[in-house]
Amino acid sequence: MRTSNYLLSTLKETPNDAEVVSHQLMLRAGMIRKLASGLYTWLPSGLRVLRKVENIVRQEINNAGAVETLMPVVQPFELWEETGRSEKMGAELLRLNDRHDRPFVLSPTAEEVITSLVRNEVSSYKQLPLNLYQIQTKFRDERRPRFGVMRSREFSMMDAYSFDIDKDGLQKSYEAMHQAYCRAFDRMGLNYRPVLADTGAIGGNGSHEFHVLAESGEDLIAFSSESDYAANIEKAEALAPAGELASATQAMTLVDTPNAKTIAELVEQFELPIEKTVKTLFVKASEEIDADIIALIIRGDHELNEIKAENLAQVAAPLEMASEQEIRKLVGAGPGSLGPVGLKLPFIVDRTVALMNDFGAGANIDDKHYFGINWGRDVELGQVEDLRNVVEGDPSPCGQGHLILKRGIEVGHIFQLGKNYSEKMNCGVLGPDGKNTILEMGCYGIGVTRVVAAAIEQNHDKFGISLPDAIAPFQVAIVPMNMHKSEEVQQAAENLYRELTDLGVEVLFDDRKERPGVMFSDMELIGIPHTVVIGDRSMKEGNFEYKNRRTGEKEAIAMADILGHLKNQLA
Amino acid sequence: MRTSNYLLSTLKETPNDAEVVSHQLMLRAGMIRKLASGLYTWLPSGLRVLRKVENIVRQEINNAGAVETLMPVVQPFELWEETGRSEKMGAELLRLNDRHDRPFVLSPTAEEVITSLVRNEVSSYKQLPLNLYQIQTKFRDERRPRFGVMRSREFSMMDAYSFDIDKDGLQKSYEAMHQAYCRAFDRMGLNYRPVLADTGAIGGNGSHEFHVLAESGEDLIAFSSESDYAANIEKAEALAPAGELASATQAMTLVDTPNAKTIAELVEQFELPIEKTVKTLFVKASEEIDADIIALIIRGDHELNEIKAENLAQVAAPLEMASEQEIRKLVGAGPGSLGPVGLKLPFIVDRTVALMNDFGAGANIDDKHYFGINWGRDVELGQVEDLRNVVEGDPSPCGQGHLILKRGIEVGHIFQLGKNYSEKMNCGVLGPDGKNTILEMGCYGIGVTRVVAAAIEQNHDKFGISLPDAIAPFQVAIVPMNMHKSEEVQQAAENLYRELTDLGVEVLFDDRKERPGVMFSDMELIGIPHTVVIGDRSMKEGNFEYKNRRTGEKEAIAMADILGHLKNQLA
Repeated sequence: MRTSNYLLSTLKETPNDAEVVSHQLMLRAGMIRKLASGLYTWLPSGLRVLRKVENIVRQEINNAGAVETLMPVVQPFELWEETGRSEKMGAELLRLNDRHDRPFVLSPTAEEVITSLVRNEVSSYKQLPLNLYQIQTKFRDERRPRFGVMRSREFSMMDAYSFDIDKDGLQKSYEAMHQAYCRAFDRMGLNYRPVLADTGAIGGNGSHEFHVLAESGEDLIAFSSESDYAANIEKAEALAPAGELASATQAMTLVDTPNAKTIAELVEQFELPIEKTVKTLFVKASEEIDADIIALIIRGDHELNEIKAENLAQVAAPLEMASEQEIRKLVGAGPGSLGPVGLKLPFIVDRTVALMNDFGAGANIDDKHYFGINWGRDVELGQVEDLRNVVEGDPSPCGQGHLILKRGIEVGHIFQLGKNYSEKMNCGVLGPDGKNTILEMGCYGIGVTRVVAAAIEQNHDKFGISLPDAIAPFQVAIVPMNMHKSEEVQQAAENLYRELTDLGVEVLFDDRKERPGVMFSDMELIGIPHTVVIGDRSMKEGNFEYKNRRTGEKEAIAMADILGHLKNQLA
Repeated sequence: MRTSNYLLSTLKETPNDAEVVSHQLMLRAGMIRKLASGLYTWLPSGLRVLRKVENIVRQEINNAGAVETLMPVVQPFELWEETGRSEKMGAELLRLNDRHDRPFVLSPTAEEVITSLVRNEVSSYKQLPLNLYQIQTKFRDERRPRFGVMRSREFSMMDAYSFDIDKDGLQKSYEAMHQAYCRAFDRMGLNYRPVLADTGAIGGNGSHEFHVLAESGEDLIAFSSESDYAANIEKAEALAPAGELASATQAMTLVDTPNAKTIAELVEQFELPIEKTVKTLFVKASEEIDADIIALIIRGDHELNEIKAENLAQVAAPLEMASEQEIRKLVGAGPGSLGPVGLKLPFIVDRTVALMNDFGAGANIDDKHYFGINWGRDVELGQVEDLRNVVEGDPSPCGQGHLILKRGIEVGHIFQLGKNYSEKMNCGVLGPDGKNTILEMGCYGIGVTRVVAAAIEQNHDKFGISLPDAIAPFQVAIVPMNMHKSEEVQQAAENLYRELTDLGVEVLFDDRKERPGVMFSDMELIGIPHTVVIGDRSMKEGNFEYKNRRTGEKEAIAMADILGHLKNQLA
């Protein structure tokens, strides 16, 4: 490709509205342009990277035995009613009506379409296992699209769906996809981790997210210091502390705390260690229990894990905090003065709190706390659950080492759906026993557009983007210096361009009439891994200059050796 | 690919709702499945063909110097208002509102988005010429989607847009794309023709359609018997007949014609040759002239060419016929009795009619016609234009030979837009003279999903689909006979599968436990060009059986020679 033929569109300035570095660099490098909120046009340099990611994903998913299909972006609304997701997905599911006023949606994913296809096309267990996928445009009408293509409304996703006759089959399909994901992200040269993820109502351990590790990641991931255990903080289990409940050493006292509405104020004003305080959170109860509200009690310095809370039978999902009005009506005190002692509604206690003695908590009377509370003596303990986010240093739930937290960007997800969709949509086949058998499904997604942004979050420096070779927009840049004034330079550049292109190498030949500095900084900004500089001065010494984007190292290479040198670099 | 891993989904019966053969065969061969009216899921066999078409198109468009981008499917409505197409496209442009009630459309094409991009990104003529394209999902909300993916609502299109500083540049870009289209359709192995197409209000000869020739085509194309002239019948010029206007030989007489409301009745009842009759058609006039209605006069056996009529300054576009009520109000007679004599509104006469003498026409009095009308003597001739469709045998407008009509399916279109969009959207750059210069644009489309259907219309037989090698879903089928009973057969089949796959050949290995007849007819139906049958009997004689899908010929090939034989066939 010659720059003169290409749409380079680099920017010197960082656009104001781009917050994260990948968004900034994708705009500056001319990879994407915003068309409207959450809608981006992929310019040539962006699309080249996107297609490389897409092709690696396609090859590895094919190798895993999945078969490619292509489903419409516009899907009938009725299908989404069959599974109840028409309601559940809320406003993210964008609805539209066609000219005959029939309702449709823009596909955010395709469980319904694929399950409907398989129930029509597959009739016997002999046709299984089957894994169908597509790489197709998706749409989620995010309330607040942001970070460029990291969280856009229209995006490209690889979505695969496996169908098996039984759980063993599902497990095998799931393992094959797990491995395919690892091979794909390995080939892209990314630093990533598969981590255990929450499975919500479906339960079990059948869900992994794939995270590209980057400081800017929205997700926190907990790793073991000793094993390969890794889990999204949503999922990472907080073990009960070692040891037994210590005996009471203090009497329980009612204390006036007029200016202590928060844990921080309580700790500061009364010199109470924060590890001796608890937070009592009122949330909406599920229909499983009689009460409207249930209390969740965690240690003062811990955070509630909303996913763990939602997954409890007694708690309504999605999680909803009670309002101050509701709280006052129930206990006669505000949210800053709540606690387990004398509480007249059901409560659940976090594992860590269950082992606390002599602790302080609100008295359910405005401006008063009890200090020196002890379980059993002052209040019955009741149900104990894992309610909190893990923190660094917690023992790893795998039993080895302690937990370390890192940030990640979720780029893939694999999930054992079981019969969740197939039962609702009556997707069954004739089983080996001659009876209709509802299929076991798995679903698998990779956000291919998002991978590009995540890869840049992980691979950039002060000069711009520096992607791994496998997903860089071009492999080699040819930068001729003052080509339009030197026939020798032009000849050498044209020759090298032709030779490399004939070898199948993807070259960007910067044939613009620009100053060398502009050309260098453009090639660095868009992240071409290998650059050959061709200039009169070095040619007089029989050399070209080779520059490595990642290391920044420059090397004079004899003109006759340049092809061999590049081949070695690219190998 | 092993059939056991694949979704073959062939049907024995022809589905009732499929009218055209490509639709029937694509359903039977398991290439597509209907999701809703005009919305199709591409199953694996269909997608393989689609991707091959797409890749050939991509390569040839790249070779023509165009650069790939990807624009969103969902586009802001405002952009479409800038060019007025929000109105002009009518209900085919599907509108939707997002969660914040902002208006968007589903992209049927992308002139607005690309022109908006170029006006932002390109500032100097030095960055030109530029040709940007995408291969992306499109949506047109057809009133009556039909013929499967031939006229679906959601479809995949390659759409390219060239930007040049002047008309010469546009002409070069246009020629390059014309050649790229020819190379692409050549490589696909299709019998196609580039034909002159109508350019509507923009005028000039800057538009070609690319038609795949097939009996079932919706379009009529006029070819010269002697030259390579070809034009869509919409566009093909009907020359004036040779010779001069003959003198009158009859007096004009008013004749009672109570039962002759149509040309056919007139010809039958009065023994008038049809070549001596004319039809007078009342259509809405444009704002160019004072009248509301204008008459168009063509010979009794000819058809009005609506496009030619619309392109006249005096005629309203789109063409609209006057109602019987309007006609009666104007002339006091019904549509069966109209003619030029005594007509009190403007009329335009077809070239052929202008050279007719002694002809009959309605008298603008109910149930009466004039016979023996002669121009000049009985009525002034006035304006003469080409108003009719050409017919077979007409002299070719190229000056060589006569016209032959054939049917075609439009699969591509190239168009010199000129400044039509760039002026409305103020897309200009700094020209060589230092002034802002509005760009000359071309647009270029290939309906990639439609190409698949058109290719099948042209390439099928009683056994099913028989596509050219370059776009067949697989290159080779391996059909082992009773593999599950013979270890030799299984071993040979597995070896051949591995050897071919290692060579990069795309093989469908039919490893199902099916009767050989079922396997043969499936491989023929989906149209795999080369089949190797592996059976105990022929192996005892040291042979495999090779079958060619297109010729139907079978050949015994020595087992050791099979790879060489296939390589020759595939070359």
